[in-house]
Amino acid sequence: MAAGSTFGEIFKVTTFGESHGRALGCVIDGCPAGLPLSEADLIPFMARRKPGQSEYTTARNEDDAPEILSGVFEGITTGTPISILIRNKDQHSKDYSDIADIFRPGHADYTFEKKFGIRDYRGGGRSSGRETAARVAAGAVASKLLNGYGIKACAYTKSIGPVNISRYDENEMNSLYMPDHAAYEKASEYIKRLRSEGNSAGGIIECVIKGVPAGLGDPVFGKLDARLALAVMSIGAVKGFEVGDGFEAALSTGIDNNDAFIPAPDGGIMKATNHSGGILGGISDGSDIIFRCAVKPTASISMLQQTVDKSGRPEDIMIKGRHDPVIVPRAVAVVEAMADLVIADALLASLHDRSGNIKSIISEV
Amino acid sequence: MAAGSTFGEIFKVTTFGESHGRALGCVIDGCPAGLPLSEADLIPFMARRKPGQSEYTTARNEDDAPEILSGVFEGITTGTPISILIRNKDQHSKDYSDIADIFRPGHADYTFEKKFGIRDYRGGGRSSGRETAARVAAGAVASKLLNGYGIKACAYTKSIGPVNISRYDENEMNSLYMPDHAAYEKASEYIKRLRSEGNSAGGIIECVIKGVPAGLGDPVFGKLDARLALAVMSIGAVKGFEVGDGFEAALSTGIDNNDAFIPAPDGGIMKATNHSGGILGGISDGSDIIFRCAVKPTASISMLQQTVDKSGRPEDIMIKGRHDPVIVPRAVAVVEAMADLVIADALLASLHDRSGNIKSIISEV
Amino acid sequence: MAAGSTFGEIFKVTTFGESHGRALGCVIDGCPAGLPLSEADLIPFMARRKPGQSEYTTARNEDDAPEILSGVFEGITTGTPISILIRNKDQHSKDYSDIADIFRPGHADYTFEKKFGIRDYRGGGRSSGRETAARVAAGAVASKLLNGYGIKACAYTKSIGPVNISRYDENEMNSLYMPDHAAYEKASEYIKRLRSEGNSAGGIIECVIKGVPAGLGDPVFGKLDARLALAVMSIGAVKGFEVGDGFEAALSTGIDNNDAFIPAPDGGIMKATNHSGGILGGISDGSDIIFRCAVKPTASISMLQQTVDKSGRPEDIMIKGRHDPVIVPRAVAVVEAMADLVIADALLASLHDRSGNIKSIISEV
Amino acid sequence: MAAGSTFGEIFKVTTFGESHGRALGCVIDGCPAGLPLSEADLIPFMARRKPGQSEYTTARNEDDAPEILSGVFEGITTGTPISILIRNKDQHSKDYSDIADIFRPGHADYTFEKKFGIRDYRGGGRSSGRETAARVAAGAVASKLLNGYGIKACAYTKSIGPVNISRYDENEMNSLYMPDHAAYEKASEYIKRLRSEGNSAGGIIECVIKGVPAGLGDPVFGKLDARLALAVMSIGAVKGFEVGDGFEAALSTGIDNNDAFIPAPDGGIMKATNHSGGILGGISDGSDIIFRCAVKPTASISMLQQTVDKSGRPEDIMIKGRHDPVIVPRAVAVVEAMADLVIADALLASLHDRSGNIKSIISEV
Repeated sequence: MAAGSTFGEIFKVTTFGESHGRALGCVIDGCPAGLPLSEADLIPFMARRKPGQSEYTTARNEDDAPEILSGVFEGITTGTPISILIRNKDQHSKDYSDIADIFRPGHADYTFEKKFGIRDYRGGGRSSGRETAARVAAGAVASKLLNGYGIKACAYTKSIGPVNISRYDENEMNSLYMPDHAAYEKASEYIKRLRSEGNSAGGIIECVIKGVPAGLGDPVFGKLDARLALAVMSIGAVKGFEVGDGFEAALSTGIDNNDAFIPAPDGGIMKATNHSGGILGGISDGSDIIFRCAVKPTASISMLQQTVDKSGRPEDIMIKGRHDPVIVPRAVAVVEAMADLVIADALLASLHDRSGNIKSIISEV
Repeated sequence: MAAGSTFGEIFKVTTFGESHGRALGCVIDGCPAGLPLSEADLIPFMARRKPGQSEYTTARNEDDAPEILSGVFEGITTGTPISILIRNKDQHSKDYSDIADIFRPGHADYTFEKKFGIRDYRGGGRSSGRETAARVAAGAVASKLLNGYGIKACAYTKSIGPVNISRYDENEMNSLYMPDHAAYEKASEYIKRLRSEGNSAGGIIECVIKGVPAGLGDPVFGKLDARLALAVMSIGAVKGFEVGDGFEAALSTGIDNNDAFIPAPDGGIMKATNHSGGILGGISDGSDIIFRCAVKPTASISMLQQTVDKSGRPEDIMIKGRHDPVIVPRAVAVVEAMADLVIADALLASLHDRSGNIKSIISEV
Repeated sequence: MAAGSTFGEIFKVTTFGESHGRALGCVIDGCPAGLPLSEADLIPFMARRKPGQSEYTTARNEDDAPEILSGVFEGITTGTPISILIRNKDQHSKDYSDIADIFRPGHADYTFEKKFGIRDYRGGGRSSGRETAARVAAGAVASKLLNGYGIKACAYTKSIGPVNISRYDENEMNSLYMPDHAAYEKASEYIKRLRSEGNSAGGIIECVIKGVPAGLGDPVFGKLDARLALAVMSIGAVKGFEVGDGFEAALSTGIDNNDAFIPAPDGGIMKATNHSGGILGGISDGSDIIFRCAVKPTASISMLQQTVDKSGRPEDIMIKGRHDPVIVPRAVAVVEAMADLVIADALLASLHDRSGNIKSIISEV
Repeated sequence: MAAGSTFGEIFKVTTFGESHGRALGCVIDGCPAGLPLSEADLIPFMARRKPGQSEYTTARNEDDAPEILSGVFEGITTGTPISILIRNKDQHSKDYSDIADIFRPGHADYTFEKKFGIRDYRGGGRSSGRETAARVAAGAVASKLLNGYGIKACAYTKSIGPVNISRYDENEMNSLYMPDHAAYEKASEYIKRLRSEGNSAGGIIECVIKGVPAGLGDPVFGKLDARLALAVMSIGAVKGFEVGDGFEAALSTGIDNNDAFIPAPDGGIMKATNHSGGILGGISDGSDIIFRCAVKPTASISMLQQTVDKSGRPEDIMIKGRHDPVIVPRAVAVVEAMADLVIADALLASLHDRSGNIKSIISEV
């Protein structure tokens, strides 16, 4: 974690880049050889995170054409680092000098300044949500790897402000990634009203990971839910994380919260319920993994706010430009990416759980 | 994270030991030299986690006398690994053969078996809450280090089942670590009732860390709140984590959730409110750091439950012996320990944020 | 080290890229903020490694214009990842299909194939010496950091084949980086003769690091000389490493090999001799750090060699194209880069040796 | 490497303990489950390193009874941390106050003092060769793991001072671990002479690792020979490392140094020679891995030496007590242990080289 831009222990992703620098991107070191991969695999994932998809997202033209620079030969991963580059196209399009000496409330301007004594203030620099484009590119590679083994993460908007979904309709496709048409319409109204005031909304994202075999994750500090928490809480604007029944479990009792084990139709073992969210003692239990995270309202708002400049002198600030009145829908792809990275890493780590595994691999080569 | 028993990047803690093995303990590699330290510093921390303190905790006699084996010379840390040993005294006191072939609901028996193909079933082995004794010993060392710089973490019980505290009375000392006498009495009634049924309760722990200077934590994956989430979610039975307004932030709006910056009385900069919980963009902002976590009801209950044995055959189980009807009070010390470990690590990491720091250190030596 | 393309613990460098892929480069995560840096700082370092400088190096046109993509704002490092990109210009210039199915002796073709089941055979792919261009770019950043504190690594050719230098003339500048004109002339003759036969030569590189304060490096596994060994042995073609008297020390005796401590002119402490090579017990002792490494003869030779193809069938091979008859001179810059990376990392790590350091940093911020 | 007492990425070993503290030991996190293991497996390894075996080693009674505290259940590893404890029995047997304020030449007294500002001066504290007892215990576990797959490291004394072995007689058992009886006798004479003068000798250890499959190790910084160099150079007193032809390769030419590939009798591929020492491009090539290291003469000698005290004042020093006149024989077991740790780690890491491996493991569980 030192320095903070690397994630994972085996499937290791290092990201780089600022919002308005020349480029951003990532290096994936530890992706196994033999996986078919091309830029075409990345584009659908990046498209979901891209701004300008709906009336509720910013108009910035992030025509993000990811370029795979290394680690793939004739369409197959080679086991060497996969580097993905995303150029910043409109890096000089705006004048940011008005926020060079002032700290925007709810943003990391002040804390970066205190930490480093210097900050790239253009669009938030390294603390910009733009950074997550690199995560989504990396997550797409992890997703490709996982899909080969029947594992798939799916995130969606569970609530926006006070509007909750009450159903999951897989055929409901909308710009808020909210799988309940009635909720989508109510949430749209809610966002429109806040936007008209120059204000913004938050919400909750839920993610379900299907197909994870029992046995992934580690005891003690390497618990699978703890890693998911690290992964998801590392997304800017996320303020809370819970797995399974989460905070509701605090209100439950032992007899209600424990999931009974029962024989599975296939002759194996399954759970009768899934209060645990698919993880017991930090290790996947074969049920769906289910977690949620809370996303705070967009910090950039077009309302007058009180702040100070670098010298500590009070200033009023009204943030210019168009901003997402809610970032929840765009964060859906990022949450999914982080889930994929955690599971891919845990899947690879599980290969050395048992000394018997070594024999089967060696004899194969 | 590989293998999972090491925490931290610079102040690195590795723990070992099973519930009913010979001993458990930890090795701290990376504690700076020059810190006064002895077993006497550890004992008050360990005493708070110890069972048998109240009528609501198990009677197991964990007379945990930690022994510092290395890394301290004439009462001062030397910069070399500090190893702390805690012998298991009553390791042979009980017959666990009844759970050798059966998977207890809500426990990690099944997942350890699937992961490793073998498990030390005595008292949960490595997945036992007993493992946290080693964390608390390590946390005590981190706490000692932090206190020298005016940093102090304080955790307490915020709720048990449906009973919430409505005040923080620092003079209220009770066995539930619930700083509100009225709530303590209601919670006691609640626990007694559940215990009489053989059932158990969950709850919420809150932690406030005071004195953290602005600038700790890293951008992107190394965000301070993400590290706290990893640390706290890695405690068995914790199912959710939130910082500042947490899940409530999802219901708020930008103008209400943003904290205004204002001049501080000392001439510096402070925030008018603390919705962020002391962290902005993953970096401490100089306000109190505030987080909460949800603890599920104790999985070991004296009620009849449905489960299966290793071959998948249905079995009824009724867990024998005395068990904590609620583990929240004992987990308070563990949450605090994990908070101390995260902050100590981030504090040390912050030393290399700026190239200017190098000069000041070199010239000093 | 998992996956192998990241070096360092605090000043962490991740490299990527194949010989004939689109690009290669590096990401430096952990460079402190506040360091002036631009592409102009990198170019002199990269120029020394570049081929085509002399009659003894390949003619490949590596017009390596490094581009800094991130981590620098207005000419100053910001503490966020510094990514450096080097495009491969002549990536399609040659047909490598003749070595697609055959294993070149002395190269990593066979071992990559056995490890990954696939390899990018064009010019050796990831195992090509071209990979070191990224190391040199990263090393240039480390060097800039170190120079600010009076630390400087200087490597040079100590021998080529049987020709050793007998003096160090700092004014002697030649294409073999051999600081002794007479030796340079003899070595040139030696290389010319081997090249005319289609054969190749090896040699020894020595590196002296001046200005390293006493106290860098760690006990046990993190010894400074062990890290230097890892760093230097990780350069392709290096087959041996020694520090101070190195292998000669095995022939010496205690009384001759021990360095006496004596008072230094400045009132401090110094050593009367430097058999240790500036490191005692794995920690720098304030003397010059001196190490050497052995570089094997270039594996690519224009002589007929015996080998096999992928199916194991015997084949004769004669490697086409121009190849360096000796890579020692070009490796000089790489050895220096690795030394700089090790020392920069150890320097930053030393900031948390003593708890007193924390106070001085905190009070400063 | 931060802090320096952990080795390995997957099979991770953390050691602790000082020469004259209460105990030393190690924690192995990442040993696969399912390996039969008991203290009896450790004892033969530790016996070889133990002092007092011959007339050339110190008489200190290190009756090292290692105690496995965790990670083994009913004689089988469980996949959780294996902690091994070794008590220091004669920790109070000697008065070390005479070296409390003085820096012994050739030792780490001065450098520890400069680094940490404090040191446990009793017997060298953490820098003592006694620390290697914990490495040997960990190495024994790695060796057990490797032996199950037909991999075995064997180290021996290649030279002492000027006396080289000229043959390898596997039946020759002597206290110098020198597999050539004539050389053993000459070396004995050499050591006796030096000891009578109060002086000491150095030497060279060679290690051959048989049975390593092709494909272990990583490209770039994670080269297998680089890891071996780190491992072996991290042993106190080791001043040089070489693999295969090592420094001799610098004198060779391409045609002589390259190893031809030829068909193997079993239908596979082998090398006609082994100048490479079993590693090509940092990855094992299926041949025996061969490396050597240089050990300096014992620093503790009974001759008058010049040094200074902590204030820099000149002092004469004559080190009291019995000391090994040569540590090479005892270091043989340590070199072997470090080799085993490197290979075990690389073997486990190789499990995630190919995406196909995942399938074979998942389907098995």
